[in-house]
Amino acid sequence: MRSQKRVLVIGGDLRYGYTARALSRHFDTYALGFTRRVLPFPEVAVLESAAQGVPVCDALVLPMPVSDDGVCVNAPLSPQVLPLHSLVPLVREGGTVFGGRFGKAQEVFDKAGIRTVDYLQEEALSVANAVPTAEGALQILLEEMPRTLCGSRVLVLGYGRIGSRLAHSLHALGARVTVAARRLSDRTHAEAVGCRAVPTAGLAGEVGGFDVICNTVPAVLLTREVLSAVSPDALVLDLASKPGGVDWEAAKALSVRVVWALSLPGRTAPVTAGEIIARTVTDILTEGGNADGA
Amino acid sequence: MRSQKRVLVIGGDLRYGYTARALSRHFDTYALGFTRRVLPFPEVAVLESAAQGVPVCDALVLPMPVSDDGVCVNAPLSPQVLPLHSLVPLVREGGTVFGGRFGKAQEVFDKAGIRTVDYLQEEALSVANAVPTAEGALQILLEEMPRTLCGSRVLVLGYGRIGSRLAHSLHALGARVTVAARRLSDRTHAEAVGCRAVPTAGLAGEVGGFDVICNTVPAVLLTREVLSAVSPDALVLDLASKPGGVDWEAAKALSVRVVWALSLPGRTAPVTAGEIIARTVTDILTEGGNADGA
Amino acid sequence: MRSQKRVLVIGGDLRYGYTARALSRHFDTYALGFTRRVLPFPEVAVLESAAQGVPVCDALVLPMPVSDDGVCVNAPLSPQVLPLHSLVPLVREGGTVFGGRFGKAQEVFDKAGIRTVDYLQEEALSVANAVPTAEGALQILLEEMPRTLCGSRVLVLGYGRIGSRLAHSLHALGARVTVAARRLSDRTHAEAVGCRAVPTAGLAGEVGGFDVICNTVPAVLLTREVLSAVSPDALVLDLASKPGGVDWEAAKALSVRVVWALSLPGRTAPVTAGEIIARTVTDILTEGGNADGA
Amino acid sequence: MRSQKRVLVIGGDLRYGYTARALSRHFDTYALGFTRRVLPFPEVAVLESAAQGVPVCDALVLPMPVSDDGVCVNAPLSPQVLPLHSLVPLVREGGTVFGGRFGKAQEVFDKAGIRTVDYLQEEALSVANAVPTAEGALQILLEEMPRTLCGSRVLVLGYGRIGSRLAHSLHALGARVTVAARRLSDRTHAEAVGCRAVPTAGLAGEVGGFDVICNTVPAVLLTREVLSAVSPDALVLDLASKPGGVDWEAAKALSVRVVWALSLPGRTAPVTAGEIIARTVTDILTEGGNADGA
Repeated sequence: MRSQKRVLVIGGDLRYGYTARALSRHFDTYALGFTRRVLPFPEVAVLESAAQGVPVCDALVLPMPVSDDGVCVNAPLSPQVLPLHSLVPLVREGGTVFGGRFGKAQEVFDKAGIRTVDYLQEEALSVANAVPTAEGALQILLEEMPRTLCGSRVLVLGYGRIGSRLAHSLHALGARVTVAARRLSDRTHAEAVGCRAVPTAGLAGEVGGFDVICNTVPAVLLTREVLSAVSPDALVLDLASKPGGVDWEAAKALSVRVVWALSLPGRTAPVTAGEIIARTVTDILTEGGNADGA
Repeated sequence: MRSQKRVLVIGGDLRYGYTARALSRHFDTYALGFTRRVLPFPEVAVLESAAQGVPVCDALVLPMPVSDDGVCVNAPLSPQVLPLHSLVPLVREGGTVFGGRFGKAQEVFDKAGIRTVDYLQEEALSVANAVPTAEGALQILLEEMPRTLCGSRVLVLGYGRIGSRLAHSLHALGARVTVAARRLSDRTHAEAVGCRAVPTAGLAGEVGGFDVICNTVPAVLLTREVLSAVSPDALVLDLASKPGGVDWEAAKALSVRVVWALSLPGRTAPVTAGEIIARTVTDILTEGGNADGA
Repeated sequence: MRSQKRVLVIGGDLRYGYTARALSRHFDTYALGFTRRVLPFPEVAVLESAAQGVPVCDALVLPMPVSDDGVCVNAPLSPQVLPLHSLVPLVREGGTVFGGRFGKAQEVFDKAGIRTVDYLQEEALSVANAVPTAEGALQILLEEMPRTLCGSRVLVLGYGRIGSRLAHSLHALGARVTVAARRLSDRTHAEAVGCRAVPTAGLAGEVGGFDVICNTVPAVLLTREVLSAVSPDALVLDLASKPGGVDWEAAKALSVRVVWALSLPGRTAPVTAGEIIARTVTDILTEGGNADGA
Repeated sequence: MRSQKRVLVIGGDLRYGYTARALSRHFDTYALGFTRRVLPFPEVAVLESAAQGVPVCDALVLPMPVSDDGVCVNAPLSPQVLPLHSLVPLVREGGTVFGGRFGKAQEVFDKAGIRTVDYLQEEALSVANAVPTAEGALQILLEEMPRTLCGSRVLVLGYGRIGSRLAHSLHALGARVTVAARRLSDRTHAEAVGCRAVPTAGLAGEVGGFDVICNTVPAVLLTREVLSAVSPDALVLDLASKPGGVDWEAAKALSVRVVWALSLPGRTAPVTAGEIIARTVTDILTEGGNADGA
């Protein structure tokens, strides 16, 4: 179903071009902060500047982070700077500004009385992003490991959205997967889908037998003590956001091989990452509220 | 690790024999309300009566429901009646009484200052019970359907623990599974594991094309309007607890074939159902608290 | 694509009604040996007798077995007997008679110079039938086992079409599956999809630890020696055609619980079983030859 | 079980070091054509030259190809040249020489009356190699595709060992997989595991809707006509051995993006590739014959 709403995508990297393209299936869609060369989809109207007769819109879609300095939009592909305050007149009364981590930019819209939605806080976006994150992790493992994932002994720390997705994908490819999780209910679930499960307490006694250890928990579980017990051939992949789950000093001192992987969705699957943002925005605009709470 | 604790299982059907057997791996385990014939495991001490020198215990394990009348334990296999108040002296100070739905029995233990835990409220038990429930549902579908699940078009209503487990199992067997869920995040997850997903709104327009419809939502989603659109050959399986998800009068009037399945874990997999209760109890007794909150 | 060919389905049980219905999507389809009540599909023309102006057909489809006595068609639902020789004039010159195990009936058609095809010999039919067979086996296991398949230790003997399908389905449901196969390449394949694999030699030393043993090999692998080592709680499911894989005398003497399951496709999924026959026939009639050899 | 046999691994790249390490679990194992630095496993005796008291062995294991010139062993890591004829005295009477593609080297051993086994002809090795090949293909797809495999529309041409493994892995990761296969039985099998299946005839009419096309058939199926119908964004991955499945001239002229991937096991998973060779050799040496025929 096509809506009469008007949406303007402003700034961000290439993936926001795919966001714009995906939004254009539902809304009249404009883009600012891109050239036609980097955003070649005819169904999206690429504007040359905020001055150039930009229509008043029902929604703006800003990147993640919204701004690096709190003054201008984060718009690395834009031919000109895009001050945040210049966006205010582009939103119709009652309209919405979407973005990922507003930071200081929040103030600009609050002052103007404009509703903001941080799409990174949306449950559905996190669920969807687990897919490109897990695939990015698989890619790194396939590149870095000298043996097949099938038959490898893999320990996945954490069983949230990313941990569970990664564990299932690895299991489906034939890896022998152990999940370490604090909650009994998570361990029970992991076992029910064919993984082995252990508590996170006592990790030092567990880690020795694995070819790969993937961390998804944003807490330093891989301490010096635990790292000392890791097999010398093993690879540690840290997927947790800063500060991550590895004591880096200790890893270096102990010569444990660690790969730190962040922002996988945007880096390894920009089309999908862009489409996920579009889907989340679309859902909120067409259902008129938080989709998960509806 | 074997604990020095002493546990007494009292009453319930055969599955509680398996609970006792599984508990005996960790604790000194006694059983009351059974004969040796129905509980033939030598590692469990079967007591003949509450009078007969029952030791003071760290925990009692009562069945679900704990009592039918609020006076005696629900103990269909017991040679004698087991009044609830007679159990009070069997619990040591600081001990715990486990049970499933205490109802009026709650009062007896509250008055005596004894801590009670309803294991049916434990997250880990619910997660674990989704496995026998989904297998029980598969069994019914295999029995009732004249075609293979592989290739069948199945609609699963709801994507909680049971809905998601059932959807994945059916997908793994080759069924073409659609999930209807209210939350966008659930639909996103269902799609990511290979199912189709639709919102629950507008169900009447969706149900027509399915060979099987499995309901797991405890709300009447299968109203007269929706049932009118169900294919005449289709089977409806209702797994939701009372009042269930089907307008029964309408189903009857419209000749829609409905199977109502309740208490599947105990009926189709009593050994596993008993072991799940034991695991939940063991976890709480050995970790000294709610395992999921630890 | 609809063909101008004319096909006549003769005799057999209810599943052949579904064969006729499925054939009618491609051919002008007639049925003989049924009443309209048991074959209620308007797209199939139900003939009352072979005398009643039956059109000359491009193909006849006979049941499995074609005949019990070599004289009449195996037609348990027919209001009258259907002698084999009466079918000869119903086939056009150059036409084909399909059937499952012709036995003595072969002679009738050979003498008349009519080409016969035994659909049970077709590779594609065997591959397709593995699905209802494996689902029938799952149904029996779900009915007979007091524990969930998830977590059960299952031994599958043989890794042909049925063994591999069953092993994968059980693995997908969370069972811990071991495959016993003679060929290293089969064991390698089983391991690659997540099963454990052992040679069939030395079976007596292996069988002790299993909750379920499923045989798919048509040779007596479960000898007295092997059966002696089976766990007393275990269930043995024999899916192999006569004489099967179990020494029955020994099983009885040793009180090993054995379930013998034959003809599962027709019994547990008649619609699918009928459609599989139709698909095989259609493929040969439209490709003009053996589909696998084309 | 450890055998008293003596095995000598000669030449090849790094993966043969892993072959030697794996063989040392079963046999007294020597290596020639390596330095200790590149083959650091203490359980393998690294010989400095063929002259240096090499023991007479039960089996030699040569690389693939055995020789580039028919004169010397293909030994890129060797400090010195290793003439084929110098190996003859190293094999005991009745011993075996294993290698991958003997070519002209065959003559040397035939003349000396020494039995040779080409491990690339072993069914079990081919089955096992499908795993690293499919994982290598996944790695390339993850690297090259700007969207997730989950949700992508993938066409797999061919359903042999590699095609079926790749199709299943992609399906397990959530891709929407179509298999094109000539044989009805292969298509039936692909459908039974949840893929869509189409005949290879009429490919030009099918290819348009896919994000990825993976070829595993060693015949030019992707002709100019077919390539003309491929979507401009699509990626073609050719896994078939020379001459491959793509008309390269046409692909270039039509600007179709093609990646040609050969020898994936050795390149992407040398440890596993080496172990697979060891397993095949071990099986033949311990069973005394072709394992699949036993």
